[in-house]
Amino acid sequence: MYDRTKGFRDFYPGEMSARRAVIDTLEETAVRYGFREVGTPALERTEMYVDKSGVEIVEELYSFTDQGGRDVAMTPELTPTVARMVVAKQQELSKPVKWFSTRPFWRYEQVQQGRFREFYQTNVDIFGSAEPAADAEVLAYAADALTELGLTSEDFDFRVSHRDVLGGLLASFEGEVDTGAAIRAVDKREKLEVGEYHGLLADAGLSDGQAEEFDGLLETPEDDLDDLVAFAGSEQVESAVTNLRNVLDAADDLGAREYCTLSLDTARGLDYYTGVVFECFDSTGEVSRSVFGGGRYDDLIEGFGGQPMPAVGVAPGLAPLSLLCQRAGVWPEERVTTDYYVLQIGDTRPTAARVVRDLRGRGNVVETDVAGRSFGAQLEYADSINAETVVIVGEQDLAEGQVTVKDMESGDQAQVPVESFPGEHERPTYDDLA
Amino acid sequence: MYDRTKGFRDFYPGEMSARRAVIDTLEETAVRYGFREVGTPALERTEMYVDKSGVEIVEELYSFTDQGGRDVAMTPELTPTVARMVVAKQQELSKPVKWFSTRPFWRYEQVQQGRFREFYQTNVDIFGSAEPAADAEVLAYAADALTELGLTSEDFDFRVSHRDVLGGLLASFEGEVDTGAAIRAVDKREKLEVGEYHGLLADAGLSDGQAEEFDGLLETPEDDLDDLVAFAGSEQVESAVTNLRNVLDAADDLGAREYCTLSLDTARGLDYYTGVVFECFDSTGEVSRSVFGGGRYDDLIEGFGGQPMPAVGVAPGLAPLSLLCQRAGVWPEERVTTDYYVLQIGDTRPTAARVVRDLRGRGNVVETDVAGRSFGAQLEYADSINAETVVIVGEQDLAEGQVTVKDMESGDQAQVPVESFPGEHERPTYDDLA
Repeated sequence: MYDRTKGFRDFYPGEMSARRAVIDTLEETAVRYGFREVGTPALERTEMYVDKSGVEIVEELYSFTDQGGRDVAMTPELTPTVARMVVAKQQELSKPVKWFSTRPFWRYEQVQQGRFREFYQTNVDIFGSAEPAADAEVLAYAADALTELGLTSEDFDFRVSHRDVLGGLLASFEGEVDTGAAIRAVDKREKLEVGEYHGLLADAGLSDGQAEEFDGLLETPEDDLDDLVAFAGSEQVESAVTNLRNVLDAADDLGAREYCTLSLDTARGLDYYTGVVFECFDSTGEVSRSVFGGGRYDDLIEGFGGQPMPAVGVAPGLAPLSLLCQRAGVWPEERVTTDYYVLQIGDTRPTAARVVRDLRGRGNVVETDVAGRSFGAQLEYADSINAETVVIVGEQDLAEGQVTVKDMESGDQAQVPVESFPGEHERPTYDDLA
Repeated sequence: MYDRTKGFRDFYPGEMSARRAVIDTLEETAVRYGFREVGTPALERTEMYVDKSGVEIVEELYSFTDQGGRDVAMTPELTPTVARMVVAKQQELSKPVKWFSTRPFWRYEQVQQGRFREFYQTNVDIFGSAEPAADAEVLAYAADALTELGLTSEDFDFRVSHRDVLGGLLASFEGEVDTGAAIRAVDKREKLEVGEYHGLLADAGLSDGQAEEFDGLLETPEDDLDDLVAFAGSEQVESAVTNLRNVLDAADDLGAREYCTLSLDTARGLDYYTGVVFECFDSTGEVSRSVFGGGRYDDLIEGFGGQPMPAVGVAPGLAPLSLLCQRAGVWPEERVTTDYYVLQIGDTRPTAARVVRDLRGRGNVVETDVAGRSFGAQLEYADSINAETVVIVGEQDLAEGQVTVKDMESGDQAQVPVESFPGEHERPTYDDLA
């Protein structure tokens, strides 16, 4: 018996059917928004990640040298790959480029609740628009996908911020402030003790007084955003505040405003974000970590050797999303379903096979005996796969030109002429025939 | 600009939409047959493949040592993984176990037409039945999936054989014959020169006269299978021939017989096959290699430490299947489709957004301006995404309570009251409204 690899999971049919239903919803919503599916490779050159995130990233990668001497890594995220793909065909692609895909990614990190070394995400991105309408479309997509899953505004909350509000405020303090380090500190704020957090801000160059003032600014309510503009007195903060408002206005037109809360301490850890950023949280707080996040990354395409091209995206991950859906009671039932089991007694295979083919041809999920089992064993199996209706094709019945249609919930059954089954019905049940 | 990894592909939306349509067909057919989707990891312990296939397999693997010191490999095929999963829950799973999944696999091998280092397969397997009905269900699934794709009996052919017919015939020759080596030679027969092929048979222990006789036996037509039984005089060949006939009879009941041809030189290279084996070929021969194959592997579960459990499966691969579909003219069109583009002129976003939401809510694929572009640029974009209908939401029209609905194929357009759009229609077109 062989072991699974730690942090990698097997999904058996019951659990998989729930995951598939959720993935289908995430994807069908993306399709309705006009996002187009792309297919992407599992391996990329390791240097792509090192260039983007620094050499420390290698510790988190499943990276190795392939048989041809290439340094490659199993993709830890999609964004660099789609950026590479956009750059490769930047001229010929019609803009904006709106892409989605669902697939696994791999990171060598601590396994914990809702976090595995192999994890699935649906990535949804728009390349080629710097307009607030693009940020809003990404927010609206995410909100629509979650409400399609059955979640409501009571369940989730998009905490929305703008990197340049944070950056601009930090830049307005006296002294040498390391903006990147300070933003990373803000990003970890909720997870840290106050002392640790202030220690990180101090490392980033903020005095105790400045740190306290900065914290106060982060609490600024939405109606008072002009206070931040006044405090900073910089064009950077002014245009960031304007952009943030425009994005929220556009989200309002698309019905997504009600899910958004201003939250200036939402920073997103990744260095490549440049504008509006947001994270989805469980409104009840029961799921304590961010469920997923997204935002604007206008510099990445140019950084990958393309012409400058703005971009914004979001990437719901299935594992944390399942925690939220389970908390809210909307995770799909983890069970297989079957429309028909066609039960064979005696040598009735030709007729049973005809019935099976007719029912499958109408789009039904149909199983029949492939193991030469007894009546009892077949009925037990039909029950184990949650068959709704069992069609019993028995030798004696057939001699009279009949089959028996049995409703598995009530146990009711009726004989019907085999000639007229399934007849005109797409999906005949006991109730249709009795 | 970064390079792709050799043998790995990017799929842009046009090509991806065709691939997705084909995968959907392969999967929907499997669902109708009552196969259940499973989710499987991308990494397994390398030893699992070495134990099964010998240490030479490592040369074909993307294998490495992970950060935790585990020897792991990117899965080169699914069968060992599903065998591991069956063994892990063998008691509790209801039998037969009928599973499918579509996903990429990875092998470091020569890149050629229809063969890449990253390749997609839909694996379909039945565990827990040794009955011919199970082999037949797998054949019928494969035939149904291909005909659903638009292929006909003129296009493809399942060459069906039985490992024990070959094995039993070889065993009936005088002298020491290495059955495995001889079967591998047969498997390569079509690709080799006659001399090379006979050389391999000689290496396997067959004299020239025996090799010639063996070749003659492989040509035995279906009606004369009893001649093989008589020649071998062994129970092994007799029961293999009986089993082969029973599988073909069962396939006949399921409508798959017409796609099957007896072909005793179809051996399937993999050592783990034990009974009926088959390969799908292009009937015209234009696609020269086997498109995909399948068969029975009754010993694998026990070899993986489980209770003995028979199994049979098939695994259509997307790349060779695309060659066949393209040859037959049934590969789906590689283009994106769009139901509506909602064009905004002036400050009409709130109304345009309402129209967009209504149309998306009815399940349509809808794009709108997210880049603040001109009328002309928007219309050009709508054309580039093959929008069927453009809904023009202009300031002047709106002042009169109207929007314009334009059919993009004919160019015809009509004004309709914005209040009644989209109205009762799920998917209103120019023709509905004019």
